[in-house]
Amino acid sequence: MIQAGVLGATGYTGFELVKLLAGHPAAETAFATSESYADRSLEDVFPAGPSLDLIPVQSAPLERADVVFICLPHGAAAPMAIVALEAGARVIDLSADFRLRDAGAYTRWYGLEHPAPHLLDGAVYGMIEFARAELPAARLVANPGCYPTSILPPLQPLLKAGACAVGHTIIADSKSGVSGAGREPKQHTHYVEVATNFSPYAIGRAHRHLPEMEQALNWWSNSAPELIFCPHLLPAPRGILSTIYVSLADGWGEADLRSLYDGTLAREPFLRLLPAGQLASLAHANFTNRCVFSITVAGETLILTSAIDNLIKGAAGQAVQNMNLMFGLDETLGLPGSRM
Amino acid sequence: MIQAGVLGATGYTGFELVKLLAGHPAAETAFATSESYADRSLEDVFPAGPSLDLIPVQSAPLERADVVFICLPHGAAAPMAIVALEAGARVIDLSADFRLRDAGAYTRWYGLEHPAPHLLDGAVYGMIEFARAELPAARLVANPGCYPTSILPPLQPLLKAGACAVGHTIIADSKSGVSGAGREPKQHTHYVEVATNFSPYAIGRAHRHLPEMEQALNWWSNSAPELIFCPHLLPAPRGILSTIYVSLADGWGEADLRSLYDGTLAREPFLRLLPAGQLASLAHANFTNRCVFSITVAGETLILTSAIDNLIKGAAGQAVQNMNLMFGLDETLGLPGSRM
Amino acid sequence: MIQAGVLGATGYTGFELVKLLAGHPAAETAFATSESYADRSLEDVFPAGPSLDLIPVQSAPLERADVVFICLPHGAAAPMAIVALEAGARVIDLSADFRLRDAGAYTRWYGLEHPAPHLLDGAVYGMIEFARAELPAARLVANPGCYPTSILPPLQPLLKAGACAVGHTIIADSKSGVSGAGREPKQHTHYVEVATNFSPYAIGRAHRHLPEMEQALNWWSNSAPELIFCPHLLPAPRGILSTIYVSLADGWGEADLRSLYDGTLAREPFLRLLPAGQLASLAHANFTNRCVFSITVAGETLILTSAIDNLIKGAAGQAVQNMNLMFGLDETLGLPGSRM
Amino acid sequence: MIQAGVLGATGYTGFELVKLLAGHPAAETAFATSESYADRSLEDVFPAGPSLDLIPVQSAPLERADVVFICLPHGAAAPMAIVALEAGARVIDLSADFRLRDAGAYTRWYGLEHPAPHLLDGAVYGMIEFARAELPAARLVANPGCYPTSILPPLQPLLKAGACAVGHTIIADSKSGVSGAGREPKQHTHYVEVATNFSPYAIGRAHRHLPEMEQALNWWSNSAPELIFCPHLLPAPRGILSTIYVSLADGWGEADLRSLYDGTLAREPFLRLLPAGQLASLAHANFTNRCVFSITVAGETLILTSAIDNLIKGAAGQAVQNMNLMFGLDETLGLPGSRM
Repeated sequence: MIQAGVLGATGYTGFELVKLLAGHPAAETAFATSESYADRSLEDVFPAGPSLDLIPVQSAPLERADVVFICLPHGAAAPMAIVALEAGARVIDLSADFRLRDAGAYTRWYGLEHPAPHLLDGAVYGMIEFARAELPAARLVANPGCYPTSILPPLQPLLKAGACAVGHTIIADSKSGVSGAGREPKQHTHYVEVATNFSPYAIGRAHRHLPEMEQALNWWSNSAPELIFCPHLLPAPRGILSTIYVSLADGWGEADLRSLYDGTLAREPFLRLLPAGQLASLAHANFTNRCVFSITVAGETLILTSAIDNLIKGAAGQAVQNMNLMFGLDETLGLPGSRM
Repeated sequence: MIQAGVLGATGYTGFELVKLLAGHPAAETAFATSESYADRSLEDVFPAGPSLDLIPVQSAPLERADVVFICLPHGAAAPMAIVALEAGARVIDLSADFRLRDAGAYTRWYGLEHPAPHLLDGAVYGMIEFARAELPAARLVANPGCYPTSILPPLQPLLKAGACAVGHTIIADSKSGVSGAGREPKQHTHYVEVATNFSPYAIGRAHRHLPEMEQALNWWSNSAPELIFCPHLLPAPRGILSTIYVSLADGWGEADLRSLYDGTLAREPFLRLLPAGQLASLAHANFTNRCVFSITVAGETLILTSAIDNLIKGAAGQAVQNMNLMFGLDETLGLPGSRM
Repeated sequence: MIQAGVLGATGYTGFELVKLLAGHPAAETAFATSESYADRSLEDVFPAGPSLDLIPVQSAPLERADVVFICLPHGAAAPMAIVALEAGARVIDLSADFRLRDAGAYTRWYGLEHPAPHLLDGAVYGMIEFARAELPAARLVANPGCYPTSILPPLQPLLKAGACAVGHTIIADSKSGVSGAGREPKQHTHYVEVATNFSPYAIGRAHRHLPEMEQALNWWSNSAPELIFCPHLLPAPRGILSTIYVSLADGWGEADLRSLYDGTLAREPFLRLLPAGQLASLAHANFTNRCVFSITVAGETLILTSAIDNLIKGAAGQAVQNMNLMFGLDETLGLPGSRM
Repeated sequence: MIQAGVLGATGYTGFELVKLLAGHPAAETAFATSESYADRSLEDVFPAGPSLDLIPVQSAPLERADVVFICLPHGAAAPMAIVALEAGARVIDLSADFRLRDAGAYTRWYGLEHPAPHLLDGAVYGMIEFARAELPAARLVANPGCYPTSILPPLQPLLKAGACAVGHTIIADSKSGVSGAGREPKQHTHYVEVATNFSPYAIGRAHRHLPEMEQALNWWSNSAPELIFCPHLLPAPRGILSTIYVSLADGWGEADLRSLYDGTLAREPFLRLLPAGQLASLAHANFTNRCVFSITVAGETLILTSAIDNLIKGAAGQAVQNMNLMFGLDETLGLPGSRM
């Protein structure tokens, strides 16, 4: 059994990870840490969850771990990655610390000196479908952000194939359930503020997931479009739906697009292009590791709707899928929703 | 007191109208009809609402009404409009029957021969802010659709001023609470199907509110952009938030836009442009007759967020505001949220 | 116009009060205070609410107020009551500070020395229906707790008439919307923790509203039953439904109970006994100042279901109703849901 | 692999069952029927669910099944049970048809002649914890109702031990998520009617689960108390919380009760008595096959709070647990939340 350490097990992401590992046939949680609930049981925090002792992060026996999942805030994650790598573990970081390859960009967007700039070059951006070749040898994987995981997969084949009109902006209008805002109570996550409300935030070119997405778009195309990204807070516990507007290059129609996706994504166990006439919704993806998307062509605009579970495919599930590939396992092991 | 008849008082829109009339200082409900609940009390249907006898529509004493509000399905509304006008009442129709000026377009979008094509020319499209001159003399007003009411008000000044880049599509990504889908129980409005879900429907150029919006855009500009309209069903009882993407014509920046809106909409009692740094949310508009919107410029794209209460500004409140203007009253009478 | 001061206007209760006063024909908010939002506008906190300047409590011009509403936490309210009374204002305290007549009981339940024990004797417990005679002369009114307001009104006539079996416990199983837990963000009011959950708390004889209710029961009967009170947190923004189980004294049947209520509560503008076959729900009371209840007899047990809006009848509405009676006004002024 | 047939796979219960079987290591769905969606795929109905062909019930190859799960309405289930038993399958009926042993009581409560009275004597009431001895040989199991599954488990030890005061009513105040009302759209399950509401229904001695519960109480005690049962509809998709009030016989205190439960239920894999100071909530049980309960003693009253997932422990999970025991498997196979 792969021995996994989980740093930060009492956030929504960390807890989801512990649940997935509890059902994984080839890996198990060797230890789990918590700052706020150290020396208590995970069951005290999530009463239907697995029973598991929580230890302070300083006591984590990193040397016993084959892999360490870091579910800590950005800034706090990178220093632990250094320690875990030195202890001989491989690291999957679910924070933002290793997503941007450029330490300067990190500073601009996160307001911090990067705590471990020497590790950036070796970090693999773990968006599975486009990182397969690098994962078996990877020692440090940056697990992608939740919004990018709902937006990038259906865009990559378009960019690679030159299907996007050059010079036209791509618009991603995303809606996320409240678990994406973290478990720490804030005014804007108070039940009464959210329950009958719906609100945009950090729209345009202001959200920290924007540079992460544009970095990937530029990997995939020399003439990548600029991105406008508008996230919204949805009165629902979990799930992200992104409605994405792409100006098509001349000559691309729905049949060409279906053929493109069939050629590139058809064998992906967790991606699903819906048949014509169906649109993605949270109900297509929640509680699974899937990214489910649809295509609709209106004039020269392609409208994609794309759904994921932000805590599974958008975080813990993708992290487990990364682990599976790093350790040479079937990538679907322990993950709900495989289509293979 | 203005005597108002309400045809179809037990849908969400009809009920909202009866509530507004109950608090109106210069109008009162003379009679209210219901097909499903005829001969019962409105309180049996909406237990916190006003007590009011419901009669079958055939028994409605239309001749006693100064104004008749029609809250019936499209196709059923127009025949009643004919009868009510003949009985001497003025008519505010909350259905879609008189929104499109072109009977052929009506047939294409609604699949019906128009029941009263001779009335189309005289019907006023009652989007208040742009219909003021026509309302005092109007005998038949088509109350606008809920989605158009959230989308058109901030667009009109842009079109009039030539602020939209010619040849570029406008995208409206709208999210509506479930009351917009009507009170009749359907599979897709079942609580369990909606409560933790979020789903797009009729996206692109497929929704019946699209031709209504493009008709207005073409009134306001000879080079009106095409519209892409993507509605989504929100797990919330009421409210619409539209996020609208407009390609700006050369030379337009945020200061020009603020100045444009200040010049055109500042004296509107129910429109509100938010100060820089604030975005609209359902909480800005629900339970009021307001349309609240924000502007954000990202490169050459203007992002508008615009919020209304679909049952008030998007239906019953706008209808009362129309009535106020038709009868020479202060337009804010009986309506929540006036800023004057 | 009655000049009203509101201390603590940015909690859910204070905001509801400001909204009610904004629509009141004979009173107006002279000033409103806030600790967290001092020197800002109420509209910054509740974007659809009235626009109103917020001042620090130390700057409140108490001498200009005819009445001061105190919406501060217990312990902080009583000292402000002293100051406001000395400044010549009448006081309606929405906190718990003056609800228990016995300073020792206050200390046991709230863990504090009472800050103003000399005022306890003169304070009127403002449960309107049973305090009418005292209100016109009252200078200090303790506005009842939200749970007691849903439980006590249908019990009072039973106790007065001897309809409860002696020696049998009354059980009140109450369910409250989340606004009852206050606006300050806490882990247990985080959207994700509440949205698909339902949880009891402080059950049995542990909640602070218990002594307040037993105090009233003992006023009304020399042989008042003991009370078991089980509150639950409901995934809804507002409203309380209490299901109350009473062992009937010999000989009491449904007809006798209806006759009793008809004789005692029929002229109450905001109390409503439902006809046979109907049960109370939040939809009967929310957004009104009503307490709506039903009676069902099963063997020797009377089952009451009783609904209020916790922010209106359970707090701000009841406070305004108290003000109306203290100042000799029609008690229904400015309050939604009157049946008169 | 055990071959399982599922009759009625597109209701909430049938779908939950198919999901559990999809993850079961020793059983699989051989066929699944649907009236409304025959000849379509289950994925068309529940887009995140397993892909499975749906057939009309008349085409079901019952002879190929080792076990047939019947998820049809009462009245329709019993005739299919006859056919399935004749085809050689064992039957687990999730409807109410075989829960009451007395055909006359069935007629009184369900308004139907019983379709298969000759099968009643041989049917096992499948409340696992109290049916273990009978399950291995059972050919027909009546899966208990959802409410009884939340109420009876903590009561059985009390009745067996004589801990309930004779002659005192037991009160069960239950709150259920909306999936308990079925998937067919009705006015009272419309999102807008439920989402901010909370309502009691069929209270006292009126709900069809009452005779099922009293039948069991009478099995367990010659002096079983009468039951008052008050169900409420909760604005949540799933889960039942029952708050149960029991008058204790003389001499029973909290320590005795803990000791009683430790002696009787401690080895149950899916029952959990919470430690002192903790109360059950939906979060303890949802998405698991657990029944989690707490005890609180207030004077002479025992207050139990008991939580289950209505679709799992209250329906499909309990059915799978029954299957496991009927076929000699480890009873926890394929079921979430085992504590063993």
